[in-house]
Amino acid sequence: MLLSGYSRLSVPCQRFRVTYRLYGDQKEAYTKAKDICLEQTVEFPEEFIPEGLIKEQIIGQIESFESYAENSFLVVISYAIDSAASELTQLLNVVFGNISLKPGIRVEHLELPDALLQNFKGPRFGRAGLRKLLEVEKRPLLFTALKPMGLTSQELAKLAYKFALGGIDIIKDDHGLSNQPFSPYEERTSLCAEAVNKANQETGQHSIYVANITAPVHEVMKRALTAKAVGAGGVLISPGLTGLDMLREIAEDDRVALPVISHPAFLGSYVMGMSGISHHALFGQIVRLAGAEGTIYPNFGGRFSFSRAECESIARGTVIPMGNLKPIFPCPAGGMSLASVPESIKVYGNDVAFLIGGGLFKQGPDLIENSRYFRALVTKLSE
Amino acid sequence: MLLSGYSRLSVPCQRFRVTYRLYGDQKEAYTKAKDICLEQTVEFPEEFIPEGLIKEQIIGQIESFESYAENSFLVVISYAIDSAASELTQLLNVVFGNISLKPGIRVEHLELPDALLQNFKGPRFGRAGLRKLLEVEKRPLLFTALKPMGLTSQELAKLAYKFALGGIDIIKDDHGLSNQPFSPYEERTSLCAEAVNKANQETGQHSIYVANITAPVHEVMKRALTAKAVGAGGVLISPGLTGLDMLREIAEDDRVALPVISHPAFLGSYVMGMSGISHHALFGQIVRLAGAEGTIYPNFGGRFSFSRAECESIARGTVIPMGNLKPIFPCPAGGMSLASVPESIKVYGNDVAFLIGGGLFKQGPDLIENSRYFRALVTKLSE
Repeated sequence: MLLSGYSRLSVPCQRFRVTYRLYGDQKEAYTKAKDICLEQTVEFPEEFIPEGLIKEQIIGQIESFESYAENSFLVVISYAIDSAASELTQLLNVVFGNISLKPGIRVEHLELPDALLQNFKGPRFGRAGLRKLLEVEKRPLLFTALKPMGLTSQELAKLAYKFALGGIDIIKDDHGLSNQPFSPYEERTSLCAEAVNKANQETGQHSIYVANITAPVHEVMKRALTAKAVGAGGVLISPGLTGLDMLREIAEDDRVALPVISHPAFLGSYVMGMSGISHHALFGQIVRLAGAEGTIYPNFGGRFSFSRAECESIARGTVIPMGNLKPIFPCPAGGMSLASVPESIKVYGNDVAFLIGGGLFKQGPDLIENSRYFRALVTKLSE
Repeated sequence: MLLSGYSRLSVPCQRFRVTYRLYGDQKEAYTKAKDICLEQTVEFPEEFIPEGLIKEQIIGQIESFESYAENSFLVVISYAIDSAASELTQLLNVVFGNISLKPGIRVEHLELPDALLQNFKGPRFGRAGLRKLLEVEKRPLLFTALKPMGLTSQELAKLAYKFALGGIDIIKDDHGLSNQPFSPYEERTSLCAEAVNKANQETGQHSIYVANITAPVHEVMKRALTAKAVGAGGVLISPGLTGLDMLREIAEDDRVALPVISHPAFLGSYVMGMSGISHHALFGQIVRLAGAEGTIYPNFGGRFSFSRAECESIARGTVIPMGNLKPIFPCPAGGMSLASVPESIKVYGNDVAFLIGGGLFKQGPDLIENSRYFRALVTKLSE
């Protein structure tokens, strides 16, 4: 025998479960399910795997297999939590690493036991904590973005000031504002934080400026600490660009200790086809597991392609029970207009942050008035 | 006017070019192209963008638009290099951030001017440097993986020793070996590096052990430096899990100064549908830009779904002129067998690293002999 086949897995290990949607007829789908059990763990020909604990525990196990729709099946596969090594990177690797390269496999849902979840702090504030920070008791949160790219830091700060005067709760950098020569990071964040904090003093409100810290590896933490130092009230990160674990790293850091908002840039490919990860699992569960307080995604009816049902499934992922993980805010965005708020509030209820960027400019020539209108509209609809 | 419309972009900025494939009829495709120009830069309603440099430079510009196949068009869009902020994260954001969330858009090819490329060191060794390190002058490189997950560090080291004795050039951790209790990182890498180095002393060959450093953010650099300290000859990273910029960070670090190999886990969704990034651009150009010396991807005819043409396009991406970036090794893998080597060598020529994992076990009961057979086969075919 090639392998001696003992291992240190001497006691049965707890398991986590992944629901996959598999495309094909029943035989093809079942073959895919068996293949996933090997591909995501031992990645090795079954005939060479020694009897014993690797076979009994490490290889994925099909827990259930059922028909879902024509030519598609739902299968639940469980894996030993030890295979995930208490790491978000390795957890995602077991869930979908190699099979991301195979057609017709979609991660639908994650079920993670406490023994695994205890390795993650998850959201620091959660819905209740963020509401307290912003002093918004009941209504949906008002969220906007500073843009367009190409404005100077001074111009962006003027916009931030107006939005805050008008009562927008969360005023973030556009996700494309990084450290460009026209609005360098430190200058921009200093001026924007100062502008929002000045407006707060005038209004008595508690708006926050959220700085985009999406950046090269060695810069992200520096920018988060700079954001904190200059008085920003939160940070924005695009985990598709930095890696999902960078979101976790920042969210869990006690020196930063600011709300972290997740932006979906560069993540879209995971949800665009029959293969990939469901909207629910990616923008709901995984982003929450990584510790975001809010998850931005394109709302239905905007300039992107997410359906109403997909958006609802994300919202469910932000709040369904996941051990110690606090519920977070869905942040529908992407061409949302003020006109779309009434319909959206019916879908999301009050526990939502409406992110309206360009749409706030369209309401009229005065940004402060436009912001007040947004606030009044949402307040009225949420009563 | 809402925006004052001046900016610091006082001189014309050099531009980089992205070729997109857009699906739809001509009118739809052209509308998509116009939309991309805004979405990837200002993300703002065009009517509110002030005249001047933002409009003239920041917004993407359609450089060409041509029919490609029925209902699909190739468009070249250029962007100001300043918008990419000299950062890999922001470059990828401009290339494909938000539009990853829109259907029917695929990044086909990148054309980056020297003014942008000079921000990236790229591969440290390149094909010539890696050949020198391994003392392999002409033939394809022989590459294998230590698995299955669940073996102890001692067992994995025994495998490594046999592979090295048999003359495999690059012996890597399976990409699922992280820091699990059955083979903790430091123990495993110490034993495997020692085993390979011992075999080298016996054979006079120059095999390297490549440690998998895919890990949470705060661990990756530590593991890279540990790999170096224990005598590993290279490191493996899955940029889909860590973020592509982590690959760059490690590749550019002079303390590590080891060959970095890229693994495609969790990246598959980008190439699986009509939307996303081409095999060529992602596994060829982008991974090379980030500094990998080798790019692993599933070979045609194996247990994955890449076509021969897609694999050829990746190989082209590893070698086409890209300013100062050295050419790197395509590393076809994913169910490659010894039987597939002759056909593959016709496709790739000699500048390739054949990654055969499980397939090496299938040849016969003696791993050393199997490895020697692999080496003899490749040597003969490459003459």
